[in-house]
Amino acid sequence: MAGSTFGTLFRLSTFGESHGTAIGGVIDGVPSNISLDLEKIQIELDRRKPGQSAIVTQRKETDTVQFLSGIFEGKTTGTPIGFVIPNEDQKSGDYEHLKEAYRPSHADFTFDKKYGIRDYRGGGRSSARETASRVVAGAIAKQILDSLGIEFSTYVDQVGSIRLNDSSFFLMDAIESSPVRCPDLKTAERMEELIREVRKDGDTIGGCVKCMIINVPVGLGEPVFDKLHAELGKAMFSINAVKGVEFGSGFSAVEMRGSEHNDLFNADSTTKTNFSGGIQGGISNGMPIEFRVAFKPVATLIKTQSTIDSKGEIVELEGKGRHDACVVPRAVPIVEAMAAIVILDFYLRNKAVSL
Amino acid sequence: MAGSTFGTLFRLSTFGESHGTAIGGVIDGVPSNISLDLEKIQIELDRRKPGQSAIVTQRKETDTVQFLSGIFEGKTTGTPIGFVIPNEDQKSGDYEHLKEAYRPSHADFTFDKKYGIRDYRGGGRSSARETASRVVAGAIAKQILDSLGIEFSTYVDQVGSIRLNDSSFFLMDAIESSPVRCPDLKTAERMEELIREVRKDGDTIGGCVKCMIINVPVGLGEPVFDKLHAELGKAMFSINAVKGVEFGSGFSAVEMRGSEHNDLFNADSTTKTNFSGGIQGGISNGMPIEFRVAFKPVATLIKTQSTIDSKGEIVELEGKGRHDACVVPRAVPIVEAMAAIVILDFYLRNKAVSL
Amino acid sequence: MAGSTFGTLFRLSTFGESHGTAIGGVIDGVPSNISLDLEKIQIELDRRKPGQSAIVTQRKETDTVQFLSGIFEGKTTGTPIGFVIPNEDQKSGDYEHLKEAYRPSHADFTFDKKYGIRDYRGGGRSSARETASRVVAGAIAKQILDSLGIEFSTYVDQVGSIRLNDSSFFLMDAIESSPVRCPDLKTAERMEELIREVRKDGDTIGGCVKCMIINVPVGLGEPVFDKLHAELGKAMFSINAVKGVEFGSGFSAVEMRGSEHNDLFNADSTTKTNFSGGIQGGISNGMPIEFRVAFKPVATLIKTQSTIDSKGEIVELEGKGRHDACVVPRAVPIVEAMAAIVILDFYLRNKAVSL
Amino acid sequence: MAGSTFGTLFRLSTFGESHGTAIGGVIDGVPSNISLDLEKIQIELDRRKPGQSAIVTQRKETDTVQFLSGIFEGKTTGTPIGFVIPNEDQKSGDYEHLKEAYRPSHADFTFDKKYGIRDYRGGGRSSARETASRVVAGAIAKQILDSLGIEFSTYVDQVGSIRLNDSSFFLMDAIESSPVRCPDLKTAERMEELIREVRKDGDTIGGCVKCMIINVPVGLGEPVFDKLHAELGKAMFSINAVKGVEFGSGFSAVEMRGSEHNDLFNADSTTKTNFSGGIQGGISNGMPIEFRVAFKPVATLIKTQSTIDSKGEIVELEGKGRHDACVVPRAVPIVEAMAAIVILDFYLRNKAVSL
Repeated sequence: MAGSTFGTLFRLSTFGESHGTAIGGVIDGVPSNISLDLEKIQIELDRRKPGQSAIVTQRKETDTVQFLSGIFEGKTTGTPIGFVIPNEDQKSGDYEHLKEAYRPSHADFTFDKKYGIRDYRGGGRSSARETASRVVAGAIAKQILDSLGIEFSTYVDQVGSIRLNDSSFFLMDAIESSPVRCPDLKTAERMEELIREVRKDGDTIGGCVKCMIINVPVGLGEPVFDKLHAELGKAMFSINAVKGVEFGSGFSAVEMRGSEHNDLFNADSTTKTNFSGGIQGGISNGMPIEFRVAFKPVATLIKTQSTIDSKGEIVELEGKGRHDACVVPRAVPIVEAMAAIVILDFYLRNKAVSL
Repeated sequence: MAGSTFGTLFRLSTFGESHGTAIGGVIDGVPSNISLDLEKIQIELDRRKPGQSAIVTQRKETDTVQFLSGIFEGKTTGTPIGFVIPNEDQKSGDYEHLKEAYRPSHADFTFDKKYGIRDYRGGGRSSARETASRVVAGAIAKQILDSLGIEFSTYVDQVGSIRLNDSSFFLMDAIESSPVRCPDLKTAERMEELIREVRKDGDTIGGCVKCMIINVPVGLGEPVFDKLHAELGKAMFSINAVKGVEFGSGFSAVEMRGSEHNDLFNADSTTKTNFSGGIQGGISNGMPIEFRVAFKPVATLIKTQSTIDSKGEIVELEGKGRHDACVVPRAVPIVEAMAAIVILDFYLRNKAVSL
Repeated sequence: MAGSTFGTLFRLSTFGESHGTAIGGVIDGVPSNISLDLEKIQIELDRRKPGQSAIVTQRKETDTVQFLSGIFEGKTTGTPIGFVIPNEDQKSGDYEHLKEAYRPSHADFTFDKKYGIRDYRGGGRSSARETASRVVAGAIAKQILDSLGIEFSTYVDQVGSIRLNDSSFFLMDAIESSPVRCPDLKTAERMEELIREVRKDGDTIGGCVKCMIINVPVGLGEPVFDKLHAELGKAMFSINAVKGVEFGSGFSAVEMRGSEHNDLFNADSTTKTNFSGGIQGGISNGMPIEFRVAFKPVATLIKTQSTIDSKGEIVELEGKGRHDACVVPRAVPIVEAMAAIVILDFYLRNKAVSL
Repeated sequence: MAGSTFGTLFRLSTFGESHGTAIGGVIDGVPSNISLDLEKIQIELDRRKPGQSAIVTQRKETDTVQFLSGIFEGKTTGTPIGFVIPNEDQKSGDYEHLKEAYRPSHADFTFDKKYGIRDYRGGGRSSARETASRVVAGAIAKQILDSLGIEFSTYVDQVGSIRLNDSSFFLMDAIESSPVRCPDLKTAERMEELIREVRKDGDTIGGCVKCMIINVPVGLGEPVFDKLHAELGKAMFSINAVKGVEFGSGFSAVEMRGSEHNDLFNADSTTKTNFSGGIQGGISNGMPIEFRVAFKPVATLIKTQSTIDSKGEIVELEGKGRHDACVVPRAVPIVEAMAAIVILDFYLRNKAVSL
């Protein structure tokens, strides 16, 4: 398996390079007879696309999804949904200077060594553009989960050292009220200020996305290897630039004692605290699922860097192009999409446990 | 897929409950004609087993592995290796008090709700005892990787707030020189002191395991979903009590700028820094693979806790039994085993990329 | 994937060589809370084992299955069922003469070339003894299917040119009334006579097993690649010595016209004929599922054959040992077991189609 | 898994309905750095498409494949190849009469019951049009296999009771010399005559496709479940209208004795006969792989048939539209494509067996 497929029963296979003809995918295992709001899917895609605000890259990609199959008279038929997103802004000329040079902390070097050939234009297959296909599948998963009452709240929790650190379930309106997608306006302003500052330096900065999922029924996730958070963890690490993932108490659990970390039960089987992040023994316990995803600062700088080329010669790499100074605002819909794919997949898998 | 199988080409399927007749597994996809040192496999198992030192649980499990197939005259035959580890210390009586009560932050409640039935003795299938089977498969993977020059250094990096934070490649001797498996003796002593203190309180404490893998060839890992660190991340989150995983710079990347985080190349294609943790674009770049795994404090306390039973009634849960006050020393061989399984699997997968 | 696992949601992984310590397997994805009659599982195993009657091999294998996990107080827990069948009759000495020689039409040559090493004793991994593990999993699947009303009728339909060719749903009593497992006593007698005659010559003869499954709900099977009969076909071809599989009209459809082959509907949506064999477009249509499996004559003869050894030298291979002159009577429970595994797997998969 | 993916390392996922916007697929696991002749792929597609000759359906489909990714400067990059084949001849009006009626021996009834919704136009997802995507993937696999010296000979062996029954390795020129794709001109003429006759009656007739593959290296196929012929068998049964598959001696083995069926070795390890069909113990033995695939007569007739509709009412179904009187000539490239996908997949899988 060459790794372009994700999911067990609800499965997405993607294809496409940043500057090829199109990217797209096949979604198999979609339950039948579900009404889909195609416009809402496009809205999710628009949230990911470049050029939405002053703080993200001004690259123009219309990112319009075209559905080719699996939907009949507005409803899913149970057959695979094939879709494409044509690439329209293919200024390959922008990338001629990357034909030979390996950009630091990019996948240029590793792709070249692995495959012996590489579509160097804009990152090719390793470009984050591929995630647009995930957003399409995630948007479909979210509509199905929504009909089951399962809801998501995903937002920017941290940029640099500015952190929100609030465990409320923020609504979409609050999240979308700032271009940085941090639902607290004061914190959002400080984050934007930092991003502007970093960008002025031709530099970039890291950040964290937080995701909370409510009304997940008890019982999703398989014990042992396919624990719910193991698959969510894989999903998150499969997103470009992710360096860390933590559930519930996460890394802070390291310094805690069991007597303070244990989530004691209420009589209704909810728990008084949620250090478990909604998952115990790899299985959802009905409490909100909570996790945080750490993104490194974008590797493309508007600064000249010294690097090597495919012959091992030192070359100067000029910083140019249109790039994000901070990736997390655009990462929000990607994190949510991958989370939705995982939750729906386990929802379907769980139906097979008891007859 | 009910989730008891891990790996694509090198695959482990496990079975077994903590207090059943035996645990064990099937390892499929083992390359043929490899000489196996069975004693070394048992030594790895012994490192995981309870009762090794004063700071871990005194539960006696001999954990002796018996191989049933796939090995002929000391060599692998390419056919599946079946193995069992009989359960010898089956004092089920110890667990009668758990028949009805749901232990806080354990999987009792979620298993009961998911399956409607549960082997309540000692955690049943959700017991960490299952990981002994992983250690067997990992020990086999390590022997194969060792013949390819790939080596592991896995140790306790943090207990509570005491952290080693050193990026050396520590050798087994140093790691095994303290019962806490921290290769720096001074830090190890402080960690042991803390664990003793916590145990005296009938309490538990969290910790971190660090893993470093050297001589991994460039090119392991598949782009997009099956990134090397995505699969390693899943492997780690599949281990009991893990709350967070980070690669290279990890969560600290959030506060860094791109200009400081980028790993600049040397002329020989190594990098001057290793914030990437040996993986770029999901593919190994030849630098040491580095990651940290955060474990929560063990949920079983030697304290009385208030909880609920299956009828939703509040009950008092007496703390008894023999348990670890800190799980990370025994988690070291488990983390290493899962890492070895992933690396070998991707090594085999990578062979199919070019003809 | 090295191919020792079968099934998607209900999955069996097997291990073991003919003359190793034990064979066995892991069954994952078993629905929880199902009462299992373990004795009935052993009875199925006994139907497969050698030495049952004068017409099959007199090799003594007690084939006693031991369950190690996944069953608690007589019920399935939803966790994997691990089991072993110890090998008791390990007269390896019998096989020393095969250490170097490649038996004609056996897997000796292909295994040696593929793996470069081979457990030559009794066929090692390629021995039909491995199918005992399938019978265990199949017997469990059958008990679950039985609770859903789904029933099997599997029997010997042909030995040499003697064919029953009757589409009745024969009951177990009728099938077991003759050692050849042909439910028509007259035909059974003729088949036994032929087998005795062939055996007297030190020779072997081929045969066909027919399987009919009733009360399968409409809707099992996935369109396109995982058609119900495609997976059943794979299951059958995975059984040793199978050379052909046909569903419904099978090869006779080649000579038929559409106007005679089409299964016209009755008003209750049953069909007047069943040339489709209960499957249309890869999906069960509620009519009996019917297929036939062709087995070649056993390759082991009690005759001296000329063959080659691993050095490419011509050697004389003496025919000895205890073997079946016709494999189909013992193949009956294996065909049924594999069919049951497939049907249950698709039953579980089908539950995910609509919410 | 909803069944729209085939293969383990070389994997095809398809999507698309007969009368939707487009059909297409994603091919993952393509080895990198392979030069592809795109024109040759289109030629294979043209062999499958309707309207090629007087004896096949006159439906006009241009079946032009567009590649969207995975190919850079004429070579494979190792990333997934996404492709679409737009549907151009979408006369849905032709199918209004099928909106309610279930065509006998089609998948209309089973799809409706399984999914509760159905794209009734031209068979929707169950249309053989989906196989065009397989031909694309197979044509790519064949080019890769061709560079390894592996060659295919696939042709019509039987129509009705007219059978060629010749085990020569026929070349493409001979196969393409008649519209019926039978390489013996005399036999071809008789077959065509029969097809014309049947068509005149508004009727259809069955047939057999034979496939022979030479120069397959020894060692492809995995023992136990993923035997080479088990996966080939599944591949064949996944093609529309297939009722039977047999390898080597096939069903004729049933009547043979072991002493005549055993393939005795020559000193060079080839065998004197090839009743095994090139596969022993599920693994290729270097002899030509040979199998036959039985197709039922096409279910769509130009005759009025009585059937039922979705309300269970008896309705008269008028025979109209443009259909094949015999499907096997067009099935030839589909059988070959699926065989090529399987062989390449196992070629890649086999590379992981020994280090």
